[in-house]
Amino acid sequence: MTAGPGRVVELAGGVGGARLAHGLQVALGSDLTVVVNTADDVERHGLLVCPDHDTVLYTLAGMEGPFGWGIAGDTSAVMAQLGVYGEETWFGLGDRDLAAHIVRTARLRAGARLTDANLGLQRSLGLAATILAMSDDPVRTQVRTSSGWLEFQDYFVRLRQEPEVLDVRFEGIAAARPTAEVLDAIETAGLIVIAPSNPIVSVGPILAVPGLRAAIGQARATGTAVVAISGIVGGRALKGPADRMLASLGHESSALGVARLYAGLATAFVLDPVDRALGPAIEALGMRTLVTDTIMDDDPARARVAAEVLDFAARSALIVG
Amino acid sequence: MTAGPGRVVELAGGVGGARLAHGLQVALGSDLTVVVNTADDVERHGLLVCPDHDTVLYTLAGMEGPFGWGIAGDTSAVMAQLGVYGEETWFGLGDRDLAAHIVRTARLRAGARLTDANLGLQRSLGLAATILAMSDDPVRTQVRTSSGWLEFQDYFVRLRQEPEVLDVRFEGIAAARPTAEVLDAIETAGLIVIAPSNPIVSVGPILAVPGLRAAIGQARATGTAVVAISGIVGGRALKGPADRMLASLGHESSALGVARLYAGLATAFVLDPVDRALGPAIEALGMRTLVTDTIMDDDPARARVAAEVLDFAARSALIVG
Repeated sequence: MTAGPGRVVELAGGVGGARLAHGLQVALGSDLTVVVNTADDVERHGLLVCPDHDTVLYTLAGMEGPFGWGIAGDTSAVMAQLGVYGEETWFGLGDRDLAAHIVRTARLRAGARLTDANLGLQRSLGLAATILAMSDDPVRTQVRTSSGWLEFQDYFVRLRQEPEVLDVRFEGIAAARPTAEVLDAIETAGLIVIAPSNPIVSVGPILAVPGLRAAIGQARATGTAVVAISGIVGGRALKGPADRMLASLGHESSALGVARLYAGLATAFVLDPVDRALGPAIEALGMRTLVTDTIMDDDPARARVAAEVLDFAARSALIVG
Repeated sequence: MTAGPGRVVELAGGVGGARLAHGLQVALGSDLTVVVNTADDVERHGLLVCPDHDTVLYTLAGMEGPFGWGIAGDTSAVMAQLGVYGEETWFGLGDRDLAAHIVRTARLRAGARLTDANLGLQRSLGLAATILAMSDDPVRTQVRTSSGWLEFQDYFVRLRQEPEVLDVRFEGIAAARPTAEVLDAIETAGLIVIAPSNPIVSVGPILAVPGLRAAIGQARATGTAVVAISGIVGGRALKGPADRMLASLGHESSALGVARLYAGLATAFVLDPVDRALGPAIEALGMRTLVTDTIMDDDPARARVAAEVLDFAARSALIVG
């Protein structure tokens, strides 16, 4: 691309968002800003763990583990010993991974903002792109199941996403403020990309931060394209429980169901060839559509999807300026 | 021994105290209570590290490293990654060792007393003996060198004990209280043993906790023997900078110099055969003496020294009741 979109902001959850971010970083370098969900952050063993931030961090640094999270080849000596001391070990944390949680927690306790603590980790790993916490204020996703309200990681990791989700809430969201960095990134963005992350519990909390959705609406109103990518392909989530969660919460578990959640926000939508038939219904929501393979299993696929999204935005004259 | 001394309390610093404690635990099992110095505790990477407690902990659990501290065969993946994040790495902490600091810090932050947080670690490792922090209140040793006052671990680890120590102070000591557990252990002890640890910065802070020295004096007045073991042999410290520290602070760097620091407190003193000539001068301080090899390099040597100390106390009718 000769005329790039300038700053691109991606709203991202964990693995899917991280893979797209990796592709976008290849194309954009420091022009990429990823705004990550913090509502699945969790305190474990007195340390603040930020699963979505760290998944994006490690993926952008090229050191992510084989399943998309953690660090490739990491060991688990600390965790084994924590178990000896009677600590719960169902939330596995590798040794090198733990260093991030130790440093972040120490810097937060010393008075740093979450945004700055995380930026420090990014600088140390030499990232080209920037990852911003959606808010420095604590927000925690809870899900209601037949056995009551659960903390998100209790549901997600300990119970392996098995219980049906009857309701979702974001504790602390009313008091959460978007950071100046996030608002500035959205305001100056040439393109905003909504990752193929879980629309309910990954993108949902980001859009629920008071003022954040309005900021995107304002950017859109002044010509910034907002491209969402479906994380549901052929009715199934690429990863995680998004499909069952959409269904149990009364949404359609399909690319169309996802598009409906972004209606009025996204100006364009990317769907997989298997969902081609849903294109007209999605366009009827007021979005342009791009049909392309959205599976991002390897680096070339990530780069291709990212390039196609950027090219789509450029070709469609979605980008102004 | 058929008639044991009942509860034995050892006042201990790090490696030397840990090795004697190991020998005493072989003989006494749960009748041993070790009161450890906490004045060289230090916060690293937001985690509370208790070097003396943990050295005794690992030694009593039979898992100490080859130099007496840390855990044998421990790895350092976390530390390496902490270095990547720009953290200072001169205070090396192994992966399995870090688990103790993580758990302790989490439990302290959740409201636990230091004593209880440490007792939890001991229970998890199946210790027969009990290790008690000298105080739950923070006390921190600082040493004055030609370049001013330094935190103890700055002097001890980062500067490898190279600077001459011109003065020593224990920050927080005036406000520190001995715990109920420590006072109870001293009150009910049949024998109190002062380990061959550094008399200035290991045993010194314990005896400086307001009320603690008086409690030992009270026990002594009611017939409890107090046996001190010299950590200076032939004028040299068995380990660490005690010899140079004694000299630079105006004391004699010898078993006699150590004995003088415990005059009026110890009822008996154990010295090495090379220091036999100092025996009469030490006895003139009002202590009985035992001359025996005090090097505790291996398990049998630790058990032998411990047994000799216990036998000496029994033979000398030092133990009442």
